[in-house]
Parts: sequence; structure tokens; C-alpha cells
Amino acid sequence: MKIVIIGGVAAGAKAAAKAKRMLPEASVNIYTQDTHVSYSTCGLPYYIEGVFENYEKLIVRTKSEFEKSGINIHLQNRVTKINPESKKITVLNLQTNENYEVEYDKLVIATGAKPVIKGFERIINKKNVYTLRTLEDGVLIRDKMRTVQNITLLGGGYINIELLEAFVKNGKNVTLIEKSPFIMPILDEDISILVQTYIMENSNNQVKIITEDYISEFIGEDEITGIITSKGIGFDTEMVVISVGVRPVVDIATDAGIELGVTGAIRVNSRMETSIKDIYACGDCAEKVHIISNTPVWIPLGSTANKEGRTAAMNLCGEHKDFEGVLGSSVTRYLGLNISKCGLTEKEARKLGYDTVSTVVTKKDKAGYMPEVENITLKLIADMRSHRILGAQAIGCGDADKKIDSISVGLANNMEVKDLLDVDLTYAPPFSASVDILHSAARIIQSKLRN
Amino acid sequence: MKIVIIGGVAAGAKAAAKAKRMLPEASVNIYTQDTHVSYSTCGLPYYIEGVFENYEKLIVRTKSEFEKSGINIHLQNRVTKINPESKKITVLNLQTNENYEVEYDKLVIATGAKPVIKGFERIINKKNVYTLRTLEDGVLIRDKMRTVQNITLLGGGYINIELLEAFVKNGKNVTLIEKSPFIMPILDEDISILVQTYIMENSNNQVKIITEDYISEFIGEDEITGIITSKGIGFDTEMVVISVGVRPVVDIATDAGIELGVTGAIRVNSRMETSIKDIYACGDCAEKVHIISNTPVWIPLGSTANKEGRTAAMNLCGEHKDFEGVLGSSVTRYLGLNISKCGLTEKEARKLGYDTVSTVVTKKDKAGYMPEVENITLKLIADMRSHRILGAQAIGCGDADKKIDSISVGLANNMEVKDLLDVDLTYAPPFSASVDILHSAARIIQSKLRN
Repeated sequence: MKIVIIGGVAAGAKAAAKAKRMLPEASVNIYTQDTHVSYSTCGLPYYIEGVFENYEKLIVRTKSEFEKSGINIHLQNRVTKINPESKKITVLNLQTNENYEVEYDKLVIATGAKPVIKGFERIINKKNVYTLRTLEDGVLIRDKMRTVQNITLLGGGYINIELLEAFVKNGKNVTLIEKSPFIMPILDEDISILVQTYIMENSNNQVKIITEDYISEFIGEDEITGIITSKGIGFDTEMVVISVGVRPVVDIATDAGIELGVTGAIRVNSRMETSIKDIYACGDCAEKVHIISNTPVWIPLGSTANKEGRTAAMNLCGEHKDFEGVLGSSVTRYLGLNISKCGLTEKEARKLGYDTVSTVVTKKDKAGYMPEVENITLKLIADMRSHRILGAQAIGCGDADKKIDSISVGLANNMEVKDLLDVDLTYAPPFSASVDILHSAARIIQSKLRN
Repeated sequence: MKIVIIGGVAAGAKAAAKAKRMLPEASVNIYTQDTHVSYSTCGLPYYIEGVFENYEKLIVRTKSEFEKSGINIHLQNRVTKINPESKKITVLNLQTNENYEVEYDKLVIATGAKPVIKGFERIINKKNVYTLRTLEDGVLIRDKMRTVQNITLLGGGYINIELLEAFVKNGKNVTLIEKSPFIMPILDEDISILVQTYIMENSNNQVKIITEDYISEFIGEDEITGIITSKGIGFDTEMVVISVGVRPVVDIATDAGIELGVTGAIRVNSRMETSIKDIYACGDCAEKVHIISNTPVWIPLGSTANKEGRTAAMNLCGEHKDFEGVLGSSVTRYLGLNISKCGLTEKEARKLGYDTVSTVVTKKDKAGYMPEVENITLKLIADMRSHRILGAQAIGCGDADKKIDSISVGLANNMEVKDLLDVDLTYAPPFSASVDILHSAARIIQSKLRN
């Protein structure tokens, strides 16, 4: 059995490891254009910040560790073509520039995602313009950051909020530009505005946020030295990081005739099978199902990639395993503010036709007399018709992530508001409040459902 | 409408507040032998430790705050008799020593629990022997603790583990005696032993734990000055705290003909109604239903008391509200070690006839390269026949409570092992691991279920 895997960061690395454990006699080969396999992309902002010095800490499993377990890693070998008829792939060795073909019995596409650069094609190759995706990107950004004082972040999503924290902690002045009315457009606006307010109030005047605006002019030749926005705001800059979104890497899949889903990512079933037999896709290049709405979504996250890689491996090794989908659970932080969500936001739910009911509650996360007490603000969203909980967002210096994980498990089990009202959560003064914010929010929603 | 409530700590105080909000025109009276109402019993160990100086911080709502909202508080007024025929209670004013009668339309019994002193009757009135239940107990223990060096704790459950932390942080030498083979008998032994090991390794030689032993002799007249155990271990002591269990306060209820349940606590239905019309019971004096086993249990906790007080109030005010029961979720800590559980332990489950399957997994709670990373050890227990998750225990310096709260929500929703396998939990390096310990444990259990 020849198992070939394209891509080796999260889904690909997991698929390879799991397949080799299940079928030790199979040949397992990973081909990647990258210089490393099996590393934590999510950890790059903390490497850039300087939380640790050696980027090799981000590597989950090294090439030689893979090879010791019998998995062959082909770094800097880009797969350029899949031929499903002959069950072969064409590979370009980026170091020798030679092409060669490889046979497969089972193929796993785990090509991941890449940063969107649409609208920035003109500047993407300037010396001081960056995107963050690979280990090399992280090393370049960290090295450059240390030599400059004024940095511009384009985009106000997760990656740039994490980079903002890294840069601010390093004493830099940062201007962040987001085209939406608020940063973190993944959240509802009433929560985004709280995040934005916190950032402005806790960043020692190092941060400037410009929203509902975009760049109209970049100044500079080899390097960008200044920026002018469409509203006429102008400022100097020494470094630009573009994080305005990512998109799935699907070129070789579509070239081979593999179908994409409505989101533009590779369509897969719950066993991670693509439209072509013996070809699987998993991780950021693959479409997912949202468990709440039962609609196709594309939410690329490392935690999901891991589960999908495992699912693909189990199925291609002959064991039936379904991956049911995602809840859009995610978390990040900015200088002590934890920001977390799961399920649908209210705006997403309304767009999908739900008659939503919601509440926003602020409450202490522990007994008020304990020194470690902090606030959490929780937004809970439910469906007026079914009374099902649709999603939640929590921010605060308190344990927002803890609350959202609890709700995530509820969402995965079709929890209704009444099931949350009295749920027996752990209580002790250093850990929680005797009336938990989940109870408080559920009670308010319950009374709204009655009216 | 005359609403009379007996007891005012957690359930009683909550019932009074909720009833007054729902029926502002009703008269609401709390009678209690205590000197305070509405305080956090669970916070007493932290007051004793010195986390805060003023015990009034433990008071959730003062007498005058209650009275401002129209609720009458009768402190140091002990209810001595309930007469369901005439719908009257007899009250003894402890300050004037006068008896009087009070009429009720609806009566709520929230008399709570009291420490077990069986076997210690001979010493309970000695000057340096304490139990911890009320605010006064807390003040006395704290004052005494500050004047001594060598303290003996009888019992190895939650309260004494919290007192142990308080005393050790204050530099005291403590001997703890537990008659079971391990401390924290509320946990399975494989987890208890880890807690015990941690305590012994992290207490700067201030702690001695004696298990499978009991006191055979107390030395001293007015004060206990020495102890000899049944195994012949002898030592001096300056102070003794007995926390060998609590029992529900049900005397006036049984005198009135109100039925108790098999646990010895007052039997109530899901609306907190006792066997006698218009009399409700809630909080530590009332029996509960365990949601997993659907059996009567008596697990007295402040968080439950709060929900039951609210439920009683809603029902007596005419709104239908059910309280479904408890999961035995609880948490505590000892010098950085978080100790948490929910659902059934394996020993409880086996006693109930379940064919259990379990696993114990130790894993990092966050990305390994983050400085805040800590370990968690999780025991997950499932039912071999139904594949339902029955319970979990988590300990560690990491976020054990977070994991247990997530499982608690799953338990409340009849979660099966397969539902936990791929559940979409929040992931980011400062908050969690990309493969969560819940996923790891579920995968191991799943493979055991297959075999």
C-alpha cells in the first residue's frame, strides 16, 4: 500500500503518523514545498513576540523523528500535478529543479491555506512587506520587527491581533487598518467594540486603530515608507504585515478535476473523501460542515486540521470514521484580554434565517472576594423557535475560554437554553462564581423566550 | 401571601430574594438561628488563610440590604416547630428566650447541614476543638490558628484540604488524619493517591498525613494537647479541627411529619416540594437526584443550594420550574494543584452496577512552548454498554476545572464517548493544546469500547 500525502504541517503530518501506526507495512510519503513539517503555525506570534527564542520549539515532530518511524519526508518538493487515472503525482524538486512522478494507492491532499494578497499584488514583494504563514515568515517578521519602531498591520482578524500583542509587548508603535467598521469581524459588533475599546485603553498609546478605511496609496520604492488611506490619513511606516484573510490552496486539486464546495475549498464527505476515488482532503484546504447550521463552511484551524488528518488516515486505512464538523470554536488574547467564541454569531445566525434571541452579561468569573477575580462579558445567542443555543462569545480578563469550551460541548449535543439553566458546573471561590455567568445568561434568555 | 423561609445562608437567601422579586406584594420573612444571612460558606477557608481581612466580604447581601428590598430577616430566631395543620411555625428568640408563632401560606425549609460530630462528642466542647460551618466558626478558627504552631485536622475531605492549604500558607505544621486508605475519598483511589503525593511533595515538610487510622485517645483537660491513634502514633497538638462529614439538618422537618429520602435528607420532587403541601425544602437539607444514575443522592454544595432556592421560589410563586438534579461537579485546590470532578467516580459507578471502562491520561494543558503550560491528569469513565460518559476527575497545576466543566455540560446532555472524540474546543497556544486531553482520553476509551 502506497500512501502519499501532499503537505505536512498539521493535517498532513497527523494523517501520515496515524496511517503509519495503523498500517506499519504501508509506505507513507509526505511531499511538501515547505522547508519543515509538523509545526505549530498558531505559535508563530508567540515566537515573534519572544516568548521563546528558538523557533524549533514550534516543531511538533522533526523530519528525522518521522523518518525513524518509517515515514519519508520530501521537503522542498512541490507537487505540481495529480493524475487520478494513472494514480500518480508529478513532483518538482525545488532544489534540483527536476520533475519526477510518484505512484499512489491512496492520496491525501493537505495543501493548507495561504494568505490573501488580492489588492496588494503591487507591494507584496517589497522588502519590508510580510505575510505570516510559514516558519520562515515568522523568522523574517521577528528579525525585521527588532530593527524598526513603527509597524503597520493590514487587517484586524486573529493573526493581526496576535501580532499586535507581540509588537506592543516589544515596545513598537503599531497602526492597524481594518476595512470593516470594527476589528475582529469574526465577532458580533457589540463584542468587537469591547475588544477594540480594551485595546485602545490598554496599549500605552502605542496603538492606533483605523476602521472602515483602506489604503489608497503606498509610498516608497524598494520599501514602503509611508501610507495614505482612502480617508486621507497619512503616516510613515517601516514595516507592513498583511493579514486580510486566507484562502484554501486548491490549484492542483481543481486541475485534477476534484470538485470544490461552495466555499471554494475542496468538497469532502464526513470521511474526508473527495469527489475522486482514493483521494482524500483534510485540513485548511478542505471544506467543513458547521454543526449548528448544517451548512458548508470554511473555518481553517489547526485543531480541526488535526482531527481531519486523523479521520482521513483512519478511513484510507480501512476503518470507518466520520468527522461530524465544526462549531467555529476559537480563542485568542490581547494583553490579558481573552477573546473566545463558538457556534454562530448573531449576525451569522440571522443571515441563515434564524429568529435569534440574545443577551450580553458581564459578571465576575470567581468569587468577588478572591484576589484572582476578573470580569467576563458573555454574549449568548439562541433560536427563538427551537430554543436551541446557537452560539456564544466571551471576552474579558477572566476565564472566557473556559466558558466557551463548556458551551462548545453543549452545542455539539444540541443543547437547549433550559439545559443550561441549572447545569451543574464546578464551584469553589478560586475557580468560579456560585451563580455562573452561563446560568445568568441562560436565565435571561429563558425569560425572553417566554415573552 | 405570607412566605416564610427557615434558614438564610444560600438556598434560603436566594429563595427569599427571588420570591420577593416575583411577588413584590407578598410578605417574605427569613428566620434563622444564625447571626448572619446570605454568606459564602465556601469562602471561609480563604478568609482563614488571610486572603482578605474582613469576613464581611463573605456576605453576599446584608440584613439591611434585604430589608431595603422588603424582606424581613429575623437573626438568632430559631424555628423549633412546624405545624402544617395550622400552617404556623414556632420560633424561639435566642436573645430574649421568648417563643412565638408565625403564620405562613408557603414555607421554605432551608436549614442546611451541620458537621458530623459522632465519635467526637467527648471533645467537641473543648476550648481548642473546632468545626467549620458558620461565619463565627471561621472567625474562631482564624483567630486561634494565628496563636498556634501545631494543628490537627480530622478528616481528609474538601473542607480539610482547603484548611490544610490555609494553615500551610500560614507556616503551620499540620497533621491530617483520614480513616480511609486515601484522602479525598470523594475521588477514585488512583486519583486520590496523586493528590496525596502532591501534598506530601509540595508542603515544605509542614504536613503529615495519616490514613487508615483513627484517634484512640485524646490527651488534655480543657484543651486537647495530644493525640494517640489506634495504630499507636502519638503527637502533640495545639488545635483540632473536625471535618469528618456533614449531615442535613432535618429535625424540625421530621417532627412535622415531612418525609425524608433514603439519604436521610428531606425528600423533594423536581419542584422542591416536600411530602406536605405548601412546604418546600431546598439546599443542603434537601435530597437531590443524580442525573447520571437517576438515583437519590445527598451532595450538599452552595452552587446547588442557589439553584434549588431559586426553583423553590419560582414554584411557590406559581411558576412551574423543575430542577433536574446534580452531577456531583466540584473543585478545590491545594497549593497550585487543582482538583476537580464531575459525574460518577468509577467506584460509585461499579457499585451502581455499571460495566465501566476508564482511562487516566496526563497531558499538557497548553502548547508545550508557552511559559504558562502545566500538566493535567484526567480520568475519564464511560459505560461499556451504553457508551455513555459517566464521569471524570481531573487534577493538576493546569486548567483541570476547565476540562471538568466541559464534561459536566456533556454529562447533562447524555454525551457518549463518540461525541467527545472530535468536539470542537477552542484552541490557541496560550489556552489549550491542539489535541486536547479530552480528545486524547475519548480516543483511548473509544478503542477500549471496540475491543
